[in-house]
Amino acid sequence: MLSQNQIKQITALKVKKYREEFSQFIAEGHKLVMDMIGSSYKIAGIYASADWIVANIILIREKNIPVFETLPREMERLTALSTPSPVLAVVNIPKKKLTVSTLFDHISTLSHQHTSTLSHQHTSTLVLALDDIRDPGNFGTIIRIADWFGINMVLCSESCVDIYNPKVVQATMGSIARVNVITGDLAQTLTTLSGSTTLSGSSGRFPVYGACLDGDSIFSQTLTGHGIILIGNESRGISADLAPLITKKISIPSYGNSFSGKAESLNASIATAIICAEFRRKQIITN
Amino acid sequence: MLSQNQIKQITALKVKKYREEFSQFIAEGHKLVMDMIGSSYKIAGIYASADWIVANIILIREKNIPVFETLPREMERLTALSTPSPVLAVVNIPKKKLTVSTLFDHISTLSHQHTSTLSHQHTSTLVLALDDIRDPGNFGTIIRIADWFGINMVLCSESCVDIYNPKVVQATMGSIARVNVITGDLAQTLTTLSGSTTLSGSSGRFPVYGACLDGDSIFSQTLTGHGIILIGNESRGISADLAPLITKKISIPSYGNSFSGKAESLNASIATAIICAEFRRKQIITN
Repeated sequence: MLSQNQIKQITALKVKKYREEFSQFIAEGHKLVMDMIGSSYKIAGIYASADWIVANIILIREKNIPVFETLPREMERLTALSTPSPVLAVVNIPKKKLTVSTLFDHISTLSHQHTSTLSHQHTSTLVLALDDIRDPGNFGTIIRIADWFGINMVLCSESCVDIYNPKVVQATMGSIARVNVITGDLAQTLTTLSGSTTLSGSSGRFPVYGACLDGDSIFSQTLTGHGIILIGNESRGISADLAPLITKKISIPSYGNSFSGKAESLNASIATAIICAEFRRKQIITN
Repeated sequence: MLSQNQIKQITALKVKKYREEFSQFIAEGHKLVMDMIGSSYKIAGIYASADWIVANIILIREKNIPVFETLPREMERLTALSTPSPVLAVVNIPKKKLTVSTLFDHISTLSHQHTSTLSHQHTSTLVLALDDIRDPGNFGTIIRIADWFGINMVLCSESCVDIYNPKVVQATMGSIARVNVITGDLAQTLTTLSGSTTLSGSSGRFPVYGACLDGDSIFSQTLTGHGIILIGNESRGISADLAPLITKKISIPSYGNSFSGKAESLNASIATAIICAEFRRKQIITN
């Protein structure tokens, strides 16, 4: 049984202000908790049913994670889900600040790993940059897409929904454990990255591909395996201060016919998925 | 001002049972209502603020649609949205029953239209079939994707969430006005369609492409411009009774690297988007 204080503190993590104050967030559900345990995140505590604890005690002891038996009625108070799961983890928020040098380091490491062990698969450094993505479902889904397509660095503007929002964490379906998400000043970072010749090697600058309704078709473009894919806000697109940093505007062609009009746009996560898929498809062909 | 009876009847349309009883559903928001007015759907009534009515009175009179001035506090009772919009339409549900002959007619019409006027763009008859899609957001988003990619026939199993559910209608972002969605016995329909040589012309049978995690990569497949793209349930995939009807299993390759594991799957609407995009891309190249 948990103390009132424990319940109060965990429940508070549903609110951004308290997540920032305590530097913690919650991850719920067996798969997500397992993904978090297997990641570099530090788990502050696991709150679970007796059955769950029994079934997973070896792993928990091995990882030295504090575990607290939680009754169903307590879990109902803790959960941010409509149907509580048997397990919830309180996870420490890592201190990652978006600095250009962190990014350079990360990208160089990636390039090195790819070159040494994965060159037959893909030598690529794709980074996803999200400008003002507000919907938790979209944001989480985009992290899951990045994970699927092997993009493990996602940059976000300060105006994006909080990555540690329980709805975002849930929508990533565990991919938050594998994808590095860094929030910061996008304009400044893109300026530095896109100007770098170190990152892109012989191919010149590190390009910024901006998803825009008036861009050129991704299908007819040369898309390099190095670069930043920039996705804008759900209704307003890429913001005015980032637009000048775009090296190449790209778009997804539509096929609506004139008999019936057509959809005006695609959802931000849908557009991200199609674009990432096309980048990866072109890479298989090139390599 | 509306009568209590009007409010009661419109509010009831949030529930499937009453949508079926009254054969009506609600569409909210300016864009969606405009899309519905411009479609073949019959609008039973429009409920709107005085301002909205003044701004749109010419169109409403021209179309001969009954219109009712609705106060903000009344709209708050009618709406299924978290933030009510200034306009809501009550729309009649068309009597479309999925029969094989309806489908043949529709597909033949489509082929004819494409051949006579759009052959330079795409001569294609793609049909989307949804097996047990339960999430309203996913379902609506898939209709929007179909619209974007010029697929205007979507078949659904009886177990899919109701297309006239307010959350589904909203998630289509107006595409419900342009895409034909027919609910019925998928197994029976797919059996008849895939056996037809009439539909596919010289290319033989009308193929069923089933999205499966163990399918062949869509990028390395020949994908015809004619056929059915079958998408399964969010967690269980394509059901056992439909699996034998698949002509070709297709999948989206992932690029997660061995250092960090990878996402186990993609969301159903994300997978649909990537698959539809690849079908269309291959068509541009072929034509």
